[in-house]
Amino acid sequence: MTAKTLIVINPNSSQTVTDGIKLALDPLRKFGTPIRCLTLAEGPPGIENQRQADLTIAPMLELAAAQTDAAGYVIACFGDPGLHALRDQTALPVAGIQEAAVMTALTLGQRFGVIAILPASIPRHLRAFGAMGVLDRLAGDRALGLSVADLADPDKSLDAMIATGKRLRDEDGANVLIMGCAGMAQYRATLAHETGLPVVDPCQAAAAMVLGQIALKLSHRGQPDA
Amino acid sequence: MTAKTLIVINPNSSQTVTDGIKLALDPLRKFGTPIRCLTLAEGPPGIENQRQADLTIAPMLELAAAQTDAAGYVIACFGDPGLHALRDQTALPVAGIQEAAVMTALTLGQRFGVIAILPASIPRHLRAFGAMGVLDRLAGDRALGLSVADLADPDKSLDAMIATGKRLRDEDGANVLIMGCAGMAQYRATLAHETGLPVVDPCQAAAAMVLGQIALKLSHRGQPDA
Amino acid sequence: MTAKTLIVINPNSSQTVTDGIKLALDPLRKFGTPIRCLTLAEGPPGIENQRQADLTIAPMLELAAAQTDAAGYVIACFGDPGLHALRDQTALPVAGIQEAAVMTALTLGQRFGVIAILPASIPRHLRAFGAMGVLDRLAGDRALGLSVADLADPDKSLDAMIATGKRLRDEDGANVLIMGCAGMAQYRATLAHETGLPVVDPCQAAAAMVLGQIALKLSHRGQPDA
Amino acid sequence: MTAKTLIVINPNSSQTVTDGIKLALDPLRKFGTPIRCLTLAEGPPGIENQRQADLTIAPMLELAAAQTDAAGYVIACFGDPGLHALRDQTALPVAGIQEAAVMTALTLGQRFGVIAILPASIPRHLRAFGAMGVLDRLAGDRALGLSVADLADPDKSLDAMIATGKRLRDEDGANVLIMGCAGMAQYRATLAHETGLPVVDPCQAAAAMVLGQIALKLSHRGQPDA
Amino acid sequence: MTAKTLIVINPNSSQTVTDGIKLALDPLRKFGTPIRCLTLAEGPPGIENQRQADLTIAPMLELAAAQTDAAGYVIACFGDPGLHALRDQTALPVAGIQEAAVMTALTLGQRFGVIAILPASIPRHLRAFGAMGVLDRLAGDRALGLSVADLADPDKSLDAMIATGKRLRDEDGANVLIMGCAGMAQYRATLAHETGLPVVDPCQAAAAMVLGQIALKLSHRGQPDA
Amino acid sequence: MTAKTLIVINPNSSQTVTDGIKLALDPLRKFGTPIRCLTLAEGPPGIENQRQADLTIAPMLELAAAQTDAAGYVIACFGDPGLHALRDQTALPVAGIQEAAVMTALTLGQRFGVIAILPASIPRHLRAFGAMGVLDRLAGDRALGLSVADLADPDKSLDAMIATGKRLRDEDGANVLIMGCAGMAQYRATLAHETGLPVVDPCQAAAAMVLGQIALKLSHRGQPDA
Repeated sequence: MTAKTLIVINPNSSQTVTDGIKLALDPLRKFGTPIRCLTLAEGPPGIENQRQADLTIAPMLELAAAQTDAAGYVIACFGDPGLHALRDQTALPVAGIQEAAVMTALTLGQRFGVIAILPASIPRHLRAFGAMGVLDRLAGDRALGLSVADLADPDKSLDAMIATGKRLRDEDGANVLIMGCAGMAQYRATLAHETGLPVVDPCQAAAAMVLGQIALKLSHRGQPDA
Repeated sequence: MTAKTLIVINPNSSQTVTDGIKLALDPLRKFGTPIRCLTLAEGPPGIENQRQADLTIAPMLELAAAQTDAAGYVIACFGDPGLHALRDQTALPVAGIQEAAVMTALTLGQRFGVIAILPASIPRHLRAFGAMGVLDRLAGDRALGLSVADLADPDKSLDAMIATGKRLRDEDGANVLIMGCAGMAQYRATLAHETGLPVVDPCQAAAAMVLGQIALKLSHRGQPDA
Repeated sequence: MTAKTLIVINPNSSQTVTDGIKLALDPLRKFGTPIRCLTLAEGPPGIENQRQADLTIAPMLELAAAQTDAAGYVIACFGDPGLHALRDQTALPVAGIQEAAVMTALTLGQRFGVIAILPASIPRHLRAFGAMGVLDRLAGDRALGLSVADLADPDKSLDAMIATGKRLRDEDGANVLIMGCAGMAQYRATLAHETGLPVVDPCQAAAAMVLGQIALKLSHRGQPDA
Repeated sequence: MTAKTLIVINPNSSQTVTDGIKLALDPLRKFGTPIRCLTLAEGPPGIENQRQADLTIAPMLELAAAQTDAAGYVIACFGDPGLHALRDQTALPVAGIQEAAVMTALTLGQRFGVIAILPASIPRHLRAFGAMGVLDRLAGDRALGLSVADLADPDKSLDAMIATGKRLRDEDGANVLIMGCAGMAQYRATLAHETGLPVVDPCQAAAAMVLGQIALKLSHRGQPDA
Repeated sequence: MTAKTLIVINPNSSQTVTDGIKLALDPLRKFGTPIRCLTLAEGPPGIENQRQADLTIAPMLELAAAQTDAAGYVIACFGDPGLHALRDQTALPVAGIQEAAVMTALTLGQRFGVIAILPASIPRHLRAFGAMGVLDRLAGDRALGLSVADLADPDKSLDAMIATGKRLRDEDGANVLIMGCAGMAQYRATLAHETGLPVVDPCQAAAAMVLGQIALKLSHRGQPDA
Repeated sequence: MTAKTLIVINPNSSQTVTDGIKLALDPLRKFGTPIRCLTLAEGPPGIENQRQADLTIAPMLELAAAQTDAAGYVIACFGDPGLHALRDQTALPVAGIQEAAVMTALTLGQRFGVIAILPASIPRHLRAFGAMGVLDRLAGDRALGLSVADLADPDKSLDAMIATGKRLRDEDGANVLIMGCAGMAQYRATLAHETGLPVVDPCQAAAAMVLGQIALKLSHRGQPDA
């Protein structure tokens, strides 16, 4: 019989992103719960707007339901598509990486700054932060300002992340940074070093939160075992 | 050489409370970091107002500094006395149980209700929730309404907790409950069962969060190792 | 050639609800734009949670795209499933009935009360009001408290609506009421008469807003014709 | 017998402004309700502070009361002087152009930017947005920065509007713009084209909202006919 | 030559109210600045809605301008009609009793409750608290629930004030009370004794604040002497 | 017998700062209550973080208790260390200079800007403004950006204050400035003149508020004499 497993679903179809997530979660494997990272085959290569995000929900819910050894779930897209739908479907703990990143950041600095990949994501983030009720803690949300071509270049991406992090720190007053995307954890240490600020990788934050909830038998239903 | 240890400080002088905290953290021991629960000898038997809370800070900071094997800290009083002072003193992760309970509850239900021991604590809580910027998510904060004598009676305490939890659910619209006190984790399952709501024990929430931050090398300073 | 038409999509599969919406919009036909009300065949009989709501988005987007004579859209489910996804898909004006009802109510009274059909809808509403940034104007959101059987009885529904409206007025301080459901416009006048408060039917509010935006060539894209 | 008419009152004494408003409302004439635009003879040439605004209320209320064929009212000064006073005087629908512009903008973009004519208006706007409870959605409020002489020059005004709109978009993150003045609708299309953002003319927004409320028999009193 | 004098204007025409205000300010006469309390002859006997409030502004501004020995002003109507208009007219310190009562209450308890005379005043208060940005501190705003006849009976008024104060304390969680009306200071001590809460008389609060600003040469203009 | 006296405690050990405070309060001596300014010998030379602030509380509470002729208290450190602890200890009026400065500033301009000495103070300020519930009124909080050496130079300090005040006015939209430090009142007039904005010295604001509360027998306990 398989041990109960934390299921992490990357709702875009990029295996590279999933691989990056998997690597980022290594430090949490010692917590004793297996972690399985899945790629949503039906997802787009990248999620760029609300329409694409919403269209991942139906296949994601099916993929989640098929994991019969699940102990809990992480939806690994900054934007948390289907977060509350999956909570309607299961009593097991479910984290969205955006929500978990924010809740973690709020313990690390008074005002958080978000590094968005694309400018068009910012209104989507702001709706989510409003729904979470945390706008008073938001310093700013800024996009990298890179073309799609440049985003594929790790050096240009890292440079843009550092520059954006410094603007969030210096112009917006951020005390902690959130990387507004899954699969960028490999840049975390450098970004923290260059900005002098704590940096939250949202997949790490979400996996840590769900692992804690699994261990503590916490559930949004009140009765996780029912 | 001792393994790096999570230090949990109960800032009141009640060993019974510390024992209750210790028991509540058992499910988190499998995460691989030792946990040591300390009682602040200089604290009052119970912390009932801001003055008592503030006066624990100086000895708590000393006690914390003396734990040379610390990997991180939990300040185990709902009210988080000295939370930011200890963050000024150390780069290691530090959680206050109030802050951590709120951040955890925000992932379990849209509006959280708080069960306070004493009515006089409520303004103190509200100041903290305001500083955290989460008042839009607060359903209500209600006191048990017990005399000091009745608080010592576990049956009366549990009954009052259930009754208060149901009022928070039915009159205030709470979707998740926070136990506004350290050392009450033994009531958690019953309270969740009776109200049908998720119930957060703040010490469990704080320890889980700090253990995650330790594993992920997260720090409010940005550079935890410096 | 067909005149450009306002498309109203009921994302549940109940033709009775669609018929009720159609009747409610009669007073707006004199504005000169044809109105066509569609039922989403793929929808559930009624939308009761976020999961059901999210699963209507994909077929709703297809249905919307197929209306080649569209001048604008109304998504007629209180919860606004797919609102921003449809705005990603088209430059034509799009209203969600929840968003439009709130914006209309804010011009009719200082604090709005919402009559929800089911208690489980309330957290979903609160997330939406938070995303809209209007929680400071919310008096309360209360469910009818009827069984599914009783909801099918118009007399019991109307009685419960009046009782709920009076509680929102008297206990929560509502100055204006929003009917938190499509297809209940036939009760509006009676409810207003019995409570003495303005009552907003969300489908009417949404259709009126979009008809105004069509006439004024307003679009969320800035350039409606592009 | 005269058909019931929408009364639009410009509370400053500039006929040029009233003429601009009249022209801006042309697209709404097909809604079937006559529209009459009036200039308040007792008003100042332009309203520049709260004192001037407040002093228009008494004559505006008299002018409104004298329109015996009124079906509803628009107060066409950004600042909404006398909005609630007129609502106390009549059960007919009443819109202020500031309030209506904001409620319209909130359906067109996540954060709205306001183009103010004069810097001194900004605190007045902020008080109003606070009373409306919409500050979480405000991106910024910026003045044109023109001298009175330059404001009379249409080319300089348009240039300043475009520059201000771009700053609201680029520095403040606005997704939709509100023209913070009556009688500037002629610049709307150009401003939208140059900034790529939706642009709300407040008089258009207010007239559209009141025409909808008239058709739907909506009133702040609950019983519009009483 | 007359010493510079604090001018307190009661914008209703009731000399009894003015006399009550005058008496309430006696404890502040030792601060060394003469205080003159004026009744606005043009005002209504009592101000019951926004329309009546707004119509007092023009004559109030004239009365204020005629006081050539003014050192500062208090507008003594809860609702602060003309507060910002008078600040536009003069560089001298100006207090509204509502604004000053709130700012004083915020230093005396975490959440303030307001005792309103009439239910219709509550939306007006809420607009003002929103403009002040202090809604997170509001516990509740409740009306006395008396008929006009009963309001004239001091015993019934006091009884209703005590009952309303206790509801604000027990049901709404108020830690400090504001009397939402000028001229009720004679009930303050009894109300505080019966509820055990601090009670703010708004005229006292406003006069104390302006006397402080006069002594400190503070002005909303920055340069009080100009 | 000594007249009841306002006790002002500077919780840092700098007599120069205390002397500056004393001078700043001269205009309030005519209010008739003696004022005594004390230096906390146990305090650090300057308070630079939350840890230092919290460690002043215990000796400050003792010093306060020893003043047997106290009529009320001012805690003269921007950060208000021990404010609520001292309110727990005494029924006499107690002001924190940060809280009082904010409440005063809110009557002088719509949005307040804060001039902080050190950047590290800003998160501490923001927590306090959040607890006060006034973040919607905050324009910005900016540090002087001076080295410790330069802070000792009055000319450089004044220049930096003026530059910072102008940035708060021009970039952040501040309408009123708060000097975020005790003992800088001597710069107030120049700063107001150079920026054209009202400037609040927090010690003056706090002393004026407490003197008013003493005269009016106001207390956070409701019954100041008990």
